[in-house]
Amino acid sequence: MAYRAAVVGASGYTGAELLRLVAGHPALEVTHVTADSNAGAEVAALYPSLGAEYPALAYAAFDPADVSGVDVAFLALPHGESQRIVPDLLDRVGHIVDLGADFRLPEPDYEQWYGEAHAAPALLDRFAFGLPELFRDALAGADHAAAPGCYPTAAILALGPLLAEGLVEPAGIVVDALSGVSGRGRGLSAPSLFSEANENVSPYGLLTHRHTGEMEMALTAVAGAPARLLFTPHLVPMTRGVLATCHARAAVDGLATEALLTGYRAAYTDEPFVRVLDDAPSTKATLGSNAAHLTVRFDPRTGSVLALCALDNLVKGASGQALQCANVLLGLPETTGLSTVGLAP
Amino acid sequence: MAYRAAVVGASGYTGAELLRLVAGHPALEVTHVTADSNAGAEVAALYPSLGAEYPALAYAAFDPADVSGVDVAFLALPHGESQRIVPDLLDRVGHIVDLGADFRLPEPDYEQWYGEAHAAPALLDRFAFGLPELFRDALAGADHAAAPGCYPTAAILALGPLLAEGLVEPAGIVVDALSGVSGRGRGLSAPSLFSEANENVSPYGLLTHRHTGEMEMALTAVAGAPARLLFTPHLVPMTRGVLATCHARAAVDGLATEALLTGYRAAYTDEPFVRVLDDAPSTKATLGSNAAHLTVRFDPRTGSVLALCALDNLVKGASGQALQCANVLLGLPETTGLSTVGLAP
Amino acid sequence: MAYRAAVVGASGYTGAELLRLVAGHPALEVTHVTADSNAGAEVAALYPSLGAEYPALAYAAFDPADVSGVDVAFLALPHGESQRIVPDLLDRVGHIVDLGADFRLPEPDYEQWYGEAHAAPALLDRFAFGLPELFRDALAGADHAAAPGCYPTAAILALGPLLAEGLVEPAGIVVDALSGVSGRGRGLSAPSLFSEANENVSPYGLLTHRHTGEMEMALTAVAGAPARLLFTPHLVPMTRGVLATCHARAAVDGLATEALLTGYRAAYTDEPFVRVLDDAPSTKATLGSNAAHLTVRFDPRTGSVLALCALDNLVKGASGQALQCANVLLGLPETTGLSTVGLAP
Amino acid sequence: MAYRAAVVGASGYTGAELLRLVAGHPALEVTHVTADSNAGAEVAALYPSLGAEYPALAYAAFDPADVSGVDVAFLALPHGESQRIVPDLLDRVGHIVDLGADFRLPEPDYEQWYGEAHAAPALLDRFAFGLPELFRDALAGADHAAAPGCYPTAAILALGPLLAEGLVEPAGIVVDALSGVSGRGRGLSAPSLFSEANENVSPYGLLTHRHTGEMEMALTAVAGAPARLLFTPHLVPMTRGVLATCHARAAVDGLATEALLTGYRAAYTDEPFVRVLDDAPSTKATLGSNAAHLTVRFDPRTGSVLALCALDNLVKGASGQALQCANVLLGLPETTGLSTVGLAP
Repeated sequence: MAYRAAVVGASGYTGAELLRLVAGHPALEVTHVTADSNAGAEVAALYPSLGAEYPALAYAAFDPADVSGVDVAFLALPHGESQRIVPDLLDRVGHIVDLGADFRLPEPDYEQWYGEAHAAPALLDRFAFGLPELFRDALAGADHAAAPGCYPTAAILALGPLLAEGLVEPAGIVVDALSGVSGRGRGLSAPSLFSEANENVSPYGLLTHRHTGEMEMALTAVAGAPARLLFTPHLVPMTRGVLATCHARAAVDGLATEALLTGYRAAYTDEPFVRVLDDAPSTKATLGSNAAHLTVRFDPRTGSVLALCALDNLVKGASGQALQCANVLLGLPETTGLSTVGLAP
Repeated sequence: MAYRAAVVGASGYTGAELLRLVAGHPALEVTHVTADSNAGAEVAALYPSLGAEYPALAYAAFDPADVSGVDVAFLALPHGESQRIVPDLLDRVGHIVDLGADFRLPEPDYEQWYGEAHAAPALLDRFAFGLPELFRDALAGADHAAAPGCYPTAAILALGPLLAEGLVEPAGIVVDALSGVSGRGRGLSAPSLFSEANENVSPYGLLTHRHTGEMEMALTAVAGAPARLLFTPHLVPMTRGVLATCHARAAVDGLATEALLTGYRAAYTDEPFVRVLDDAPSTKATLGSNAAHLTVRFDPRTGSVLALCALDNLVKGASGQALQCANVLLGLPETTGLSTVGLAP
Repeated sequence: MAYRAAVVGASGYTGAELLRLVAGHPALEVTHVTADSNAGAEVAALYPSLGAEYPALAYAAFDPADVSGVDVAFLALPHGESQRIVPDLLDRVGHIVDLGADFRLPEPDYEQWYGEAHAAPALLDRFAFGLPELFRDALAGADHAAAPGCYPTAAILALGPLLAEGLVEPAGIVVDALSGVSGRGRGLSAPSLFSEANENVSPYGLLTHRHTGEMEMALTAVAGAPARLLFTPHLVPMTRGVLATCHARAAVDGLATEALLTGYRAAYTDEPFVRVLDDAPSTKATLGSNAAHLTVRFDPRTGSVLALCALDNLVKGASGQALQCANVLLGLPETTGLSTVGLAP
Repeated sequence: MAYRAAVVGASGYTGAELLRLVAGHPALEVTHVTADSNAGAEVAALYPSLGAEYPALAYAAFDPADVSGVDVAFLALPHGESQRIVPDLLDRVGHIVDLGADFRLPEPDYEQWYGEAHAAPALLDRFAFGLPELFRDALAGADHAAAPGCYPTAAILALGPLLAEGLVEPAGIVVDALSGVSGRGRGLSAPSLFSEANENVSPYGLLTHRHTGEMEMALTAVAGAPARLLFTPHLVPMTRGVLATCHARAAVDGLATEALLTGYRAAYTDEPFVRVLDDAPSTKATLGSNAAHLTVRFDPRTGSVLALCALDNLVKGASGQALQCANVLLGLPETTGLSTVGLAP
């Protein structure tokens, strides 16, 4: 007998990706899909790719009463909407996995980076930060999860082992990251147009991208000291994929690339979704999979460490990670329904 | 206990795609991968996307003795190579599924379209044409299969129901088809370069593309009368996907789009990998899946029928179809290990 | 002293492309740019690519009084808007070049294909069809021009010589054409999103695309007999470029590819923007230029002729052609300010 | 009367781009094109985009005697080849502009970064570093120029004003840069294949990319103190374009973004090809033009400066810059034949 799942906000890209993944999950079944703006439409009409698996499923407007009793509710909503509905949803469902940013940060950090008061601050600590590789214990003990975004997932996985071991300075970190256009979602906006994004590289959110707060919070937890970084995202002409190129200054003498690689392999040895590579990772190898590919280098010329992480922003950076969290919350094997094989070429 | 499979020519794109698919097949296990030009290399070095599933697998040079006893050998070789090795391989393995063109056509057709004598003509009728949707009976009774190429699969599925019912003239058919660049394989050539193919549409093989013979042979069989068509392929700037846009002249009075759609739905009602859509199909909805999406129209203005088919050239157009054939040959459920869900966006 | 030009609807892609081209035109100067939805915005804000040439130019709301007295007004407006403003504009400016569909078709054809009555039918014959290569005389004698769209330009140039010489049947023509996404303009819509269009081929407008009427009208004029064709457009993942793949049935005996190529070269020998190639044309070779590249084949197997034409949809398919028309109307050398060199790779 | 130019190595992408640009240059005429590997081939066969302008031009094998007497010889050769032919060419032609790396670095730096002895070290100081914006005086006084590569041009233009004014530390600089695939040239290699590069981001050359030396040399000259940086290039799925994202640590108190922007505008006020933008630059706005678009930010949170530069790697990053250098060497207005308008969308 399968667990029952609702996908709230199922007409966007992360919602659709959840439907794709759950279709291959042997113990989970989607019983509700909601999408206020597309209520009444069939999933197959918006996503012909899903028509064979969900031939009759249609979007409904969200009503907390409808989804009462599901084992897990995935919230794939625009920023700010989760905090509006979670208070009424929390006691109606077994578990919530929020794919948005609403329940990732402590209240003051949330206000700093999002420039507004949180609507449900009392519920923030009901959600564990949903990055199992680094925060599995907290997640396993929680009822609900706030899965981190694609950029933070890549940056935190790349830098985590360095900070955990105190090998680099927690301040002065640089994260330059590249994202495919699906990271902007299915909403209509000029920068998301093919003719604007194609054959183009666009840095954006200079100095102030909100994911900075998430990265600093998680890396501070890992480091045990305040992490401080400058994050610069770039839009690149591909649909999926995130690459984080991270720079940190050595905090100890005697660093060497080989030893760093060995350390990374040890740190992630039990992680089914993390692969530490000798060579530079590239995003395409992770396409459609829940894998994160990493490598690390020490540069003796500049005394700095370079750490790189590639992943699929819609899978390990969003819906795959949410499903991985749900597996933990439901007590299922963590890899259930999740692939490590990329669609390449 | 799993069946044992060899992939001969496993370093090319269709070979790698077989490895991706078999990784998710519960009753098949890859025991041998050969690639003369990459002998000794690890699969994970060429395809980091496969590293998690095949961490230690390495390519060997092809030796028929090595693969003796496997239940199925997939041949993913450049044109002309299968006919060299099949004579020595045929009695050593349970089944052969050839992804190349060597065993698809009768001897005279082969010579006409490929401009050379076949090296093993006596073995041609040991291979059934591996398009289960239209030739399942012959396939089920055969030992070996020659899976059709991506363009023929799309064109034959699109036109088959029309010709089977005698609704269109078997001559004067036009097939204009578009393919992603992976259809050219992993070989190095200028038209396959990103800087040449990107932001470009290139028709090629004008009048003489070899897949014409395959289409005409299969459609002749379906029609029971000589099919004759002009096929014009175009390279378009995407990695995967084939779309066939097919035109045929009405052979009967009273055609109408609605009735044609109904007929197509009936013709393919039991086919798990064929979806007949009301709307125009597009390739992306099939990405990574074994699905073919079709639609059909009657144009009263010109008295012609328009039939369209979209699929993933590396899956339903190559490796997925080969796996589907292997399932039939091995007596497994035909859908085992094959998905109908596309990776979109 | 330069002629003065207004670009009405200058914030869309064809408007911006006009600004790009006029920046290199020695005898034309843009004095007004209008864009109701972007009134007040600077050109350089919407198009940083134009910032160096138009550092201070800003869009104004359209007011016919403002543009009174310009030598030429280019109308780069959404369908249906030109016919609303032309009545009040016609006597205020030297020449109008309309890039839209409003003044291309005779009244009954307009109503048939656009499904609505024309708002200014009495003015239709004040506009010549702006395809100089085939209709130069009429254009040279006119005050105003209606430049054809990208698909019709490609199809008409490809098929024109065949129909002019009576070499093919005017009925039963098939035009399958491919377009880059910029052909959809800068408006926000889901199919124009990068994540939808990338790695995708989408046929659309099946049986009923409005450009059919334009093609049939022009080819009928060339043939001196009613031309009838089925036109199927496809969206392909590139920004610019149109390719028309055209099929027609031979009407005479003895056709041969060599003779057809010779005939095409003769037909277009004096045309600076048409190149007849031995090989198949591809869109990228025309990128950013006003060139159309063609080839032609006779297929003895099927008794049909295949004619192909590639061009840049925003240049020879829109703004370049409009500028070419303006040169004719103003009595300037027709090639002024227009390039035949493509940006490749 | 036009100056006569030879393009040596004219079959590669930078050579072809020179032909495109010179076609629009009123005072320069290409009289010789050489390409050993394509000797005998017509330019129009390799580059149909150039066929209209160079209908009869064919590549010859390189022979220094053939090009004797030209006013300028552009060398667009693979690394290492210029230093072989320059000794015999230097006294035969008016000026040499080398697009390769052979004459950019002093002898010891060359050996350090290229791992081999220079073949013609005595000639190194006959070449000025061909970045007019920062080194115009030396260039104007030289006979020959070594035009910098695409990455160094972007990084040096981005960081130059900061280092010239001593606003940032010359050590500890981070340059993360992105390049379109045409930067790899027209040579055949797996990473240049469409199916490998598309939908992919690949960092490469970790720690050791040779362009590091060029950046450090030029920035050291500008700073008057040893510049030290870590450069990490990334391949992104577009044909053209380079973006450099540069980080440096503030060396003085009181930095602010507004003041930095004002300083950049002052520094580049007389530079026709440099635009300082308030917003983040993106590569597409520079497509096909010789423009470089920049912006700069001070981040008080981390005490660092972020400077970004976008350009077209084949124009301002190669052939356009070479033509700009030739204009200086020939005493022509520096902007002759060079555009600042990008092809967008």
